This record gives sequence, structure tokens and C-alpha cells, in this order.
Amino acid sequence: MARVTRTTAESGSRYDWVTFLSDYGHDDVFVGVCKGVLARFAPHARVIDICHLITPQDVVQGATSFAAALDFLPPAVHLAMVDPQSAHAARGIVVRTGDGSLLVGPDNGLLSLGWKVRGGVKAVVEIANRELWLEHIHATFRGRDIFAPVAGHLASGRPLADVGPAVDPNDLVTLEVHEAVVDDDHVHAEISAVDHFGNASLNIARSDLEAAGIALGDTVEVRCNGRTLAVPFTHTFGEVAAGRLTLCEDSFRAVQLAVNAGRADQELRVNRGDPIVIARVPQEPPGARPAVTR
Amino acid sequence: MARVTRTTAESGSRYDWVTFLSDYGHDDVFVGVCKGVLARFAPHARVIDICHLITPQDVVQGATSFAAALDFLPPAVHLAMVDPQSAHAARGIVVRTGDGSLLVGPDNGLLSLGWKVRGGVKAVVEIANRELWLEHIHATFRGRDIFAPVAGHLASGRPLADVGPAVDPNDLVTLEVHEAVVDDDHVHAEISAVDHFGNASLNIARSDLEAAGIALGDTVEVRCNGRTLAVPFTHTFGEVAAGRLTLCEDSFRAVQLAVNAGRADQELRVNRGDPIVIARVPQEPPGARPAVTR
Amino acid sequence: MARVTRTTAESGSRYDWVTFLSDYGHDDVFVGVCKGVLARFAPHARVIDICHLITPQDVVQGATSFAAALDFLPPAVHLAMVDPQSAHAARGIVVRTGDGSLLVGPDNGLLSLGWKVRGGVKAVVEIANRELWLEHIHATFRGRDIFAPVAGHLASGRPLADVGPAVDPNDLVTLEVHEAVVDDDHVHAEISAVDHFGNASLNIARSDLEAAGIALGDTVEVRCNGRTLAVPFTHTFGEVAAGRLTLCEDSFRAVQLAVNAGRADQELRVNRGDPIVIARVPQEPPGARPAVTR
Repeated sequence: MARVTRTTAESGSRYDWVTFLSDYGHDDVFVGVCKGVLARFAPHARVIDICHLITPQDVVQGATSFAAALDFLPPAVHLAMVDPQSAHAARGIVVRTGDGSLLVGPDNGLLSLGWKVRGGVKAVVEIANRELWLEHIHATFRGRDIFAPVAGHLASGRPLADVGPAVDPNDLVTLEVHEAVVDDDHVHAEISAVDHFGNASLNIARSDLEAAGIALGDTVEVRCNGRTLAVPFTHTFGEVAAGRLTLCEDSFRAVQLAVNAGRADQELRVNRGDPIVIARVPQEPPGARPAVTR
Repeated sequence: MARVTRTTAESGSRYDWVTFLSDYGHDDVFVGVCKGVLARFAPHARVIDICHLITPQDVVQGATSFAAALDFLPPAVHLAMVDPQSAHAARGIVVRTGDGSLLVGPDNGLLSLGWKVRGGVKAVVEIANRELWLEHIHATFRGRDIFAPVAGHLASGRPLADVGPAVDPNDLVTLEVHEAVVDDDHVHAEISAVDHFGNASLNIARSDLEAAGIALGDTVEVRCNGRTLAVPFTHTFGEVAAGRLTLCEDSFRAVQLAVNAGRADQELRVNRGDPIVIARVPQEPPGARPAVTR
Repeated sequence: MARVTRTTAESGSRYDWVTFLSDYGHDDVFVGVCKGVLARFAPHARVIDICHLITPQDVVQGATSFAAALDFLPPAVHLAMVDPQSAHAARGIVVRTGDGSLLVGPDNGLLSLGWKVRGGVKAVVEIANRELWLEHIHATFRGRDIFAPVAGHLASGRPLADVGPAVDPNDLVTLEVHEAVVDDDHVHAEISAVDHFGNASLNIARSDLEAAGIALGDTVEVRCNGRTLAVPFTHTFGEVAAGRLTLCEDSFRAVQLAVNAGRADQELRVNRGDPIVIARVPQEPPGARPAVTR
């Protein structure tokens, strides 16, 4: 694991890594200038870009992606910026997690799935001390003017207490995750994400399928968009023929619908948030071959 | 600020950072191979990507983006490549700016807004010494074969004079920036940029609005695309209701049209370069609520 | 060139650089988490992204891009992931090349054009030792769970033999490259790539054109999509008027069709893989001006 140099409580710890997730996109200089600011306040730190193509202002997608990635990132200052500011600007916070990482971002739920992955909340402060910010604060770019400088100072060993006053962890905004409902032999789920390859992740774990009596190798009934499809439940999408739909493990902690050498989102015409029902099908006697209707 | 190691005039200064802006996109290996070349000639230097999605061959957009970003970047070798080569290939130049940075790019105006931000031109050389280039020069990829190696050599402390002969700063190509015209209580402006979120920046500063008698809190008249809209002039877009249009500060030095939780470019159906008029509206008496026509 | 610290054969060499090409895209956290894993196993190493927008599961495009880039990259651990897993998952391999680089990726042909560029195959092992992998292996993300950890261990000096058993280089999957056929004064070629600017590279070298009796300055006949066009063969696209089509050198080792200040792919309505014929035209007497039909 990357080195986290412990020094005195006074001076805080220094971090070798800053990770960075946002909805800033790549078509502007937004990400670049934030890195310029980080280079100014933490010239020793190296930046890992998690993703900058979160759908603009989509806090739920940002929070889900952030948490999924955190499992695989070193201890670091983790900066996340999806900041709608639509009703009002959420206050900025820094959360110290159980593994010694610092999560920096707005208190709008964006960080709330992430701290669970990193050992829970150990301390929180509000970003309030303007001495750590850029001199001129633009109305619409807090990532560059406030959050990146704070992340940089923290990576350089500035103690958490210098950022602002302590916040009661119970006062933090947290996200409600839509969880699938298992109803006898049905799982009422939704599409939680569609990835670059068109795979459609569901908000269900393999244990949910097992609770509905569905086991690897079974054929299940998938209902979505007014259609009903018979789909095999396999370990990987490579186990079905090219062009075939399958229910299988996704790349993180959940279950997905995938098409071998194709795109499940196009095959099913689904988007994130769409409802979907997975049902157990009475299994045919051995020897009978399940017809995969597509 | 990042360290710029001053050594003797003979050997030049060494730079910890190379920043990089281009129109190369991310769908090819163009950016990657330039970084490979930088790694060869300046293995110690770290690269900050400013943006690589400048519209192909759009020198004005490149120059504007480069200058906007420079305000937030450390002293560095700043490499910028938007190189139409349409009529003829512009010569390559290196500009030493007042802050000790080196701007490397074609002499087609691309760097000309940037050097103003970094303390002006202190010295210029033409990129002419082939000893610093790659051995084989392809006809169509000067960024990799000529400019990246030169940037790498300079970051490693090679003196400016080794790059080529001095150039008179008065001979450099500079861009004319379209400035807004204030005509009594009208500001004749244009859309200078549309960002990732659909915000439409104008080529006007708050002082232009003040010159036209427009103050924060006023409702202004916006004319574009044959429509006339009443729009509040606020500090941030979060001050209007979701879906509402507002005139407010942008993320850099100018004023923008934004839709809270929406896209102003789609709402107004505008693109970069489109004309727009902002006019002062006789303010209604206190208590009367301005109707925001949309 | 970047330092490759030679230590004992026991401990392997340490690499300063890891390069990374994939079809993972930028809209997910896939690339970011792989870098997180690399940071864990090789915190000293710096990553150069070659390209992550290879068309999903397009091994040929990945292999071509990888080889084109390798010419310009330092000695490194070069990680490449385009991994269809459609029929079955290709085994993972590490190839040590003549220049001391290590190519890490699936044995599906993806690396096979690259090792020719780096001095050929010196040794191969199969990725088999699970001690080097992440603890939990997901079915569908071998890049993160297997290949990135192996690349990280190798960059940190772990010897090749620790990765798995030796493989006979003759057993590796290699790609057949479609080569152009020169038939008297015709070259039967195909579009091998379309780049970010719309330039259409052909699978022919300048020597193929010379074999067909075509020299710089000639006008050639280009047949594609049922049209026949007269096109000048120039050194650069800047030698023709804006909007004009030309046959010229591309950015790597081949010949391309380009439109000065325009897009050849749109002008010709061609995609990668489309056939194209280049034919020598009897040259007109000096003084006659070739009509460039478009």
C-alpha cells in the first residue's frame, strides 16, 4: 500500500496520493485547472483520476461510482465533486475514515456511500477556513477555488482541524440506496448503472437471487419494458453464445445483464433507473434444453 | 508553488511540471505518444493535462482555453498544440514569460492570450535546432516529433538559446479578441464559449454590465436568436429556481448565461460565436415582481 | 531514456514506467481502479495512458494502436487490455521483448504487433500464479483483478518466473495484418484506421506506391465507394487548398487520405476496413493542370 507518513497530530499526516472524481467532463479545462491548484498546494502528491464523466449534477451516480472505486484505491485524500447547487450550495466537508483516508466534497450525499467502504466516519469538519482557499472565489467553481486547495493542504499534512469546525456525523446528508425487494420467488430490482460496454448492473447481489431460490445454471425470467425473456444465470457472460443475453456477476459487487460480444442496454432498451423483475422459472427436467427467447 | 530550480544561465532552469493542451482528442494514441516522448527527454517532469478536446484546428478556442487555465497552473513548460497547417505550417516558437514559464507551440496566435496572463513576453526563440527533435520527422505530427521533444529538453534544463534563433516579439502572431461593445444601455456581445454543463459564457466582464447601468439584482433583457427574454442578473445560478435562466458570473473572468439544473445552450439554442444583446430594463417599482419570460 | 534499474536476475528489474492501453473508456471508473491497483503494487511507478477508447473488444484496432504507440514509449511494463472473452477467455501472458520491456495482456493477438516493434519476443510466461492477483477475482474484470496487479508486481521488480510457467513463443496467438496487394500499377488496399481528425490511414507504405510507379507530385486515381477521384500525392496535406483531398504521409508509418482543414472520412464516406484502390494515372504533359475531381 502507498505510504501514509504519520507525523505529529499537530501537523497531520502527509498523503502520497490524491484521487479525483467529478462531473467536470474532459471537454473543458476544469479538471486540468484543479490539478494545477493541487500541484500548487501539494506538489509532492500524485493524482489518480477516478472518473470525470459522471452525468452532470447526478449525485447518486457519483456516489455509487465513488464507492465502487474506493475499494481499489490506496489510502489518500479522495476528492469528489458533483455539486448541483440547484436549491442551495451544500456545505463542504472533509470526512476522516477508518482507514485514515480523507474524503473531501460537498455534504450532499456524494461521499456517503464511500465512507462505508473505508471503515466508516471517524471525524468530520466543515470546510470553513478561508485561509486555505484561493484568494478569489468564483461563484460557480468551488471545486477549483475551495475544494482542490483544501485537498492539497491536507495532502501536504495540514491538520484536519485547520479546515474548519467539527461536524456531528449524525448531521451529514446520506443517500438512500434503492434496494431490490425479494418477494417469494421474484426479485423486484432496477438498473443501477449501464457501463461503457452496455452491461446493465442491477441493484441486487447474488444473495438476493439465492433468497429467491435462483442458483447458478438456472434459467430465470427477466421482465422489463413490457417483455419477458428467459435468460440463463451464469458466472460470466462468456458462457453463452455470442449475441446472447445472460445474467451474471458484474465487475464490482452486484449482478448484471450482459450480452456476450454485444450491448445489453441496446438489446433490452433500458437505462439507469428502469425497473426490472427477475423471477425463478420452474426448472425443466434434465436433458430438456431451455429455449433462450430473445 | 512548484519548484523551479534555478541553475546557471548556461544550463537553463529545470522544470518539475509540463502542462499540455491540444486538439488531439482521446480516441487515438496521439496524447499518449507525446507523453512517451516527454518521458524520454524529461523523465523527472510530471505532466498536467489541461484539455485535449479543443475543437480540431480551432486556434481561437485553444488560445482562450489555454489562457483561462494558465491562471491556475504552476510555473512550467506549457505545451500547446492546435496546428491547422492549412495554408502553411506556422513556425514553432518558445516564449519565456514574466513568471519564468516557457510556452511552447506554433506561432499562430495560440499562445498569444496566454503570455499576457503570465507576465508578458520576456524572450522568444524559433524552434529550429533539429538536434533537439526526433530523428524521423513525420509530415503531419509535429507535436510528437518536434514540439514534445523540445518541451522535454527545456524541462530538463536545456537553455532556450539551444532551441533556435531569437525572434522579435513584435513579429509574433497575436489573436484579436472580439470584445463586447457597450452602446448606452445595451451591450452587444457574443457567446465566447459553451462549457460541459451547457453554460454559455459571454465576451463581457461585470464592468461592461456596470457601464451599461446594470447592477446585481436587476432584471435584464437578453436578445438572441430572434427572441427577447427577461433574465435576472444574479451572483450565482443557484439563486434562481431550477430550470430558470440567469445571467451570472462564470468560472473564470467573465459573465455567463446559465440555467439552474439545466443547460443554457439548449434553452437558448446558441453556439459559440452567436451574437447576443444584453439591455438594461427600466426597473419596476419595489414590490412589483419581474416576470421572467422563458 | 527512462531508467530501467537492473538488479539481480533473482529480483528482476524495476521499471519507472507503466503504460496502459484498453477499451475501458472514460465514462466508468474502470481505468481509475486499475491505476489504484497499480499504485498499490508499484507505488513508485508512473503511468502513461496510451489510449482507452479502443473500440470495445476490437483486438485488431487495439493491437495496431499499441504497436504504433510503442515506437515512442520508454522501456516499461506495457499493459494492454482488449479482452473480448466471447468464445472463451484467452490466457494471460507476459512477453519480455528485446529492449527489456514487458508486455502484459491477453494471448489473443493484442500484443503480437507490438513485440515486433520492441525487438521481438525474448521470453514468455503465462499469468498463472494467483499469489500475485487480487484476493477476490470478479468474473468480468480481469484487467483490474489479475493483469494490473501482475503489471504492478513486475514494475516493482518481481521476476518474470514468479508470474507463471514459461510458454513457447511459437504457441502465441498472432494477428494476420491485411497487407495491400500491388498489382501492376494498382494498389488494392483498405482503410486501416480513421483518426480523431478524420484522416483515413491505408494499409500501404510509400514503398508500395513506389512499386506501383507512383511518385510524390503525381496525381493518382482513388476508387472507393463506387466513386473514382483524382487525388494529388503530396508530402503533407497542407500542400493542397483547404477542403481538398490529398494522399500523403500519415502520423506513423503509413500513407493516408486527408482533407486539408476537413475530414477525409466524411468526404469519402469511409470507415475502417473499407476497400480502396489506388491507381497510377498516365501523367499529363507538363503545363497541363490536373483537374482534381471531388
